[in-house]
Amino acid sequence: MTVSRTICLGFLAVIIVGTILLMMPFSTSDGAWNNPIVALFTSTSAVCVTGLSVVDPGSYFSFWGQFFIALLAQIGGLGYMTTTTFLIMLIGRKFDLRQKVAIQQALDRPGMQGSAQIIRSIIATTLIFEITGIFLLLFAFVPKYGWNQGLWLAIFHSINAWNNAGFSLFKDNLIGYQSSFLVVFTITVLIIFGGIGYQVILESYFWLRDRALRGSLLEHRLLKKQTNLFLSLDFKVATSTTLILLVLGTVAFFFVELRNPETFGNLSLPDKLLVAWFQSVTPRTAGFNTIDIGKMTNAGLFIMIALMFIGASPGGTGGGLKTTTLRVLTSCTQAILQGKEEVLLYDRKIAINVILKAVGVFIGSVTTVIASTILIALTDPKLEFIQIFFEVVSAFATVGLSTGITGSVSAAGKLILIVTMYIGRVGILLLMSAMLGDPKPTRIHYPEENLLVG
Amino acid sequence: MTVSRTICLGFLAVIIVGTILLMMPFSTSDGAWNNPIVALFTSTSAVCVTGLSVVDPGSYFSFWGQFFIALLAQIGGLGYMTTTTFLIMLIGRKFDLRQKVAIQQALDRPGMQGSAQIIRSIIATTLIFEITGIFLLLFAFVPKYGWNQGLWLAIFHSINAWNNAGFSLFKDNLIGYQSSFLVVFTITVLIIFGGIGYQVILESYFWLRDRALRGSLLEHRLLKKQTNLFLSLDFKVATSTTLILLVLGTVAFFFVELRNPETFGNLSLPDKLLVAWFQSVTPRTAGFNTIDIGKMTNAGLFIMIALMFIGASPGGTGGGLKTTTLRVLTSCTQAILQGKEEVLLYDRKIAINVILKAVGVFIGSVTTVIASTILIALTDPKLEFIQIFFEVVSAFATVGLSTGITGSVSAAGKLILIVTMYIGRVGILLLMSAMLGDPKPTRIHYPEENLLVG
Ligand SMILES: [K+]
Ligand SMILES: [K+]
Repeated sequence: MTVSRTICLGFLAVIIVGTILLMMPFSTSDGAWNNPIVALFTSTSAVCVTGLSVVDPGSYFSFWGQFFIALLAQIGGLGYMTTTTFLIMLIGRKFDLRQKVAIQQALDRPGMQGSAQIIRSIIATTLIFEITGIFLLLFAFVPKYGWNQGLWLAIFHSINAWNNAGFSLFKDNLIGYQSSFLVVFTITVLIIFGGIGYQVILESYFWLRDRALRGSLLEHRLLKKQTNLFLSLDFKVATSTTLILLVLGTVAFFFVELRNPETFGNLSLPDKLLVAWFQSVTPRTAGFNTIDIGKMTNAGLFIMIALMFIGASPGGTGGGLKTTTLRVLTSCTQAILQGKEEVLLYDRKIAINVILKAVGVFIGSVTTVIASTILIALTDPKLEFIQIFFEVVSAFATVGLSTGITGSVSAAGKLILIVTMYIGRVGILLLMSAMLGDPKPTRIHYPEENLLVG
Repeated sequence: MTVSRTICLGFLAVIIVGTILLMMPFSTSDGAWNNPIVALFTSTSAVCVTGLSVVDPGSYFSFWGQFFIALLAQIGGLGYMTTTTFLIMLIGRKFDLRQKVAIQQALDRPGMQGSAQIIRSIIATTLIFEITGIFLLLFAFVPKYGWNQGLWLAIFHSINAWNNAGFSLFKDNLIGYQSSFLVVFTITVLIIFGGIGYQVILESYFWLRDRALRGSLLEHRLLKKQTNLFLSLDFKVATSTTLILLVLGTVAFFFVELRNPETFGNLSLPDKLLVAWFQSVTPRTAGFNTIDIGKMTNAGLFIMIALMFIGASPGGTGGGLKTTTLRVLTSCTQAILQGKEEVLLYDRKIAINVILKAVGVFIGSVTTVIASTILIALTDPKLEFIQIFFEVVSAFATVGLSTGITGSVSAAGKLILIVTMYIGRVGILLLMSAMLGDPKPTRIHYPEENLLVG
C-alpha cells in the first residue's frame, strides 16, 4: 500500500469508528440512537478538525458524545501533525539534508531511529500547550460553572483550539467571551501555535535556547555556526506570512465592521480591537468566533473567505492552501515582474517541483471549492450565494466558521460538505495521488533549498 | 518610454478622447451635455471592449453617440489585437523562432519589414469577418427595422461581436433573438473567432490552404514539412481549450437552468440548446446575452463567473485569464501528480518563464478581483454579494454581462468598476511592469517551445 493510500484510508477508518461511537444512545443527551447523517457529519468534522456542526454540540451530545468529539479531534490533529511531519521526513523532499541533520542533532539520535523521538516530541509539545491552555482557561470557566463543568469546558476548548478543531460547547460559540482578554489570549495563542507547524515550534525552541546559552561566551562561539542551521526557509516563510496575515486581518476587520452595530459597532475601542484580532486569528483555521459571523457585512465575509482559503502553515493542525503555498505563488509573480527566471525567497532559489506543487495545490483547491459551491447551489437553491460560498470554503479549509446555515442545509448538501471536509483535510493532491498511485520518485537535479507548500 | 508604458498610456489617451466625445450634446439623444461619469464609464467600457453600461445605449445615446461607441470598440479591439501581436513579435518571447519564420514565410517578407504586412493582415481579417457578419445580420434586422435602422443595427452588433465588446442597441440585449438561429450563429461565430486570436486564425487559414493544395500530389510532398510548422502549440492549446470550454459550458447551462422558468425552463428543446450554447459562448468574453442574466440560478451564475474569469485566448479581442494560462496551470498540476519536474503540453516542455507568467497572471487577476469586490461591497453594502462578484469579474475579464446592477451602483462603485475594466484590459502584469519599468531581458536558457499565457 502506498503512503498516500495509507493516510487516506487511515482518516476514513477513524471517521467510521467515530461515526459508530457518535450514533450510540450513550452519546446523545436524550439517550436515543443518533441520526446517521448527524453522526457522520460530526465525526468527519471532528477527525478533519473542521468544527462545522449541524447540531449544537453542548446540548445535543451527552458528556460521552462530547468526549468522543474531543478525542476524535485530538486524534485528527495529532495524526495530521505526525503524518505530515513523517511524510516530510520519509519522502525527503521537504526537509532538506541540513534541516534533517539539525533536527536529528536536536533529538540526539542519528538516522531513522529518530522517528519515535519525533513522535514523542510532538506529543510532548501538544501536551505542554494543551495543559497550559487548560490551566489558563480554568480561571475563566471555574468561577462561573464550578469545578466539575468548568474543568471539562477548559479541557474541551483547549483541545479544540490547539488542534484547530473549533467545536464549542457554548451555544453562541465564544461570543460570550469576546471581551475576556484571558480567553481571547489563551485561545488565540493555542490556535496560532497549533496552526504554525511542529517544525516551526521546534526551531523557535532551539533558537530561544541558543539565545539563552549565548550568555556564556565560550558556548556562544561553539554554537554560532550551528544556530544558523535552525532558521530554515520554512520557519522564515511560515512565521513572516502568518504575522502579515494576522496584522492585515485585524486592521481589515476593524475598519470594515467598525460601523456594523450587529457585529462590533457598539463595543468599546479596546473590545473592538480584541474582537478584530480574534476574528483575524480564527480563519487560520480554528473556527471559533466571538461575533455572529452571519451578521457580518459582505465585505467582511469575503475578506474572511480569502483568509480561510489561505489557512494555516504546513506541518501544523490547521488546513487551507497554506501560508507557504501563497508565498511561493506571490514570489513567482514577483520574479516575472522583475524579468527573472529564478524564484527567490529569502535569498533561496525555489525548486521547480515546489513551484509546480504550489500551482497544483492552488488549482486543486480552487477546483474543489468551485465544484462544491456549484453542487450545493443546486441542492439548496434557496440559500444565499455568499452563505454557500462561505460554508464551502470553511469546510474545505477545515475552518468550521459558518454564517449559521450548517444545520439547515439539505441532506445531499450535508453529504457534499462531508466530502469537502475530507478532501480539504487529506489534501486534494494526496487524494489524487492515492487514486492514481504514488508517483515514481524523480531525481532532484538542483542543489536548491526546498520549501513546504501543501 | 517603455513598451508597457506606451500601451497603458495609449489606452488611457483613447479613453479620455472618447469621454470628451461622449460628453458632447450631439452624443446624447436628448441633446444635453452628458454626465461625466456616464461618459467616462461608457468610453472606458467601449475602449476596453467590456460592454458594461450604466445606461441603455440604444435610447440614451444619439446616432453619433452610438457611432462613437462602435468606433471606440473597434479601436480598442483592433488596437489590442495589433499591440498584442506586436508585443509578441517585439519581445520575441512568445512566438518562437520557428513560428516567426512560419508567419514571415506566410507573409512573404523577411525580418521586421513584415510589421506593416501584419497590421494589414489583421485589418483585412477584421474586415472580412465584420462585413460577413453585417451581411448575415441584415437578414435578421432589415425585415423588421427597414434598411436605414436595420443596416446600422447590423453594423453596430457585428463590430461589437467581433471585438467582443458586447454593447447592444436593444433594451433587452439579444433576448429577443434567443430563438433566431441566424443571429445566434452569426454572433457566436464572430465572438469565437474574434476571441481566439489572430495567430490562430492565420494558422487555420494556412492549414486549410495547404489541405486544398494537397490535391496535387507533387505539391503535397513539397509542402509536407512546411505544413507541420504551422500547427503551433498556441494553436493547439487555444483551439482545444476553447472547444472544451464551449462544450462543457453548453452542457452545464443546459442542465443547471433546465427547470428555471425565468431563464429557459419554458422554451422548446432546440431553443433550450440554442440558449445554452449562446450563454456558453458569451463569457468568452463577448458580453451579449439571450436570457435575463439576473434571473439565473446561483449555480448558473457561479458557473458563468468561472467561465468569464477564464475568458478568451491571447492575441484576440477578448479578455480574462486566457485559455492558455489555464492550460499551463492545469499541466503543472498534472506534472506534479505524475511526479515529473517537467511540464508538458502536446509533447512540448513548457519553459519556466511561461509557468511563472501564468502564475503571475493568475495571482494578479485573483487579487484584482478580490480587491474590487471588497471595495464595491463597502461602497454598495445593500447589493447582493453574487451581483457584486459577478459584476467585478465581468468588468475585469472585459465581458460586459451583468445581473442588472450596473446602473444602480454608487458613483464610487462605478469608478472602481472603471479602474477594474482598465486593469483587466491592459493586463495586471503589463500595468505593474509599466509602473515598475520594463524588466531587463534575461537570457533564455532552454531550447523549449514557448506559449502565450497573458
Ligand atoms: K477548524
Ligand atoms: K465584452
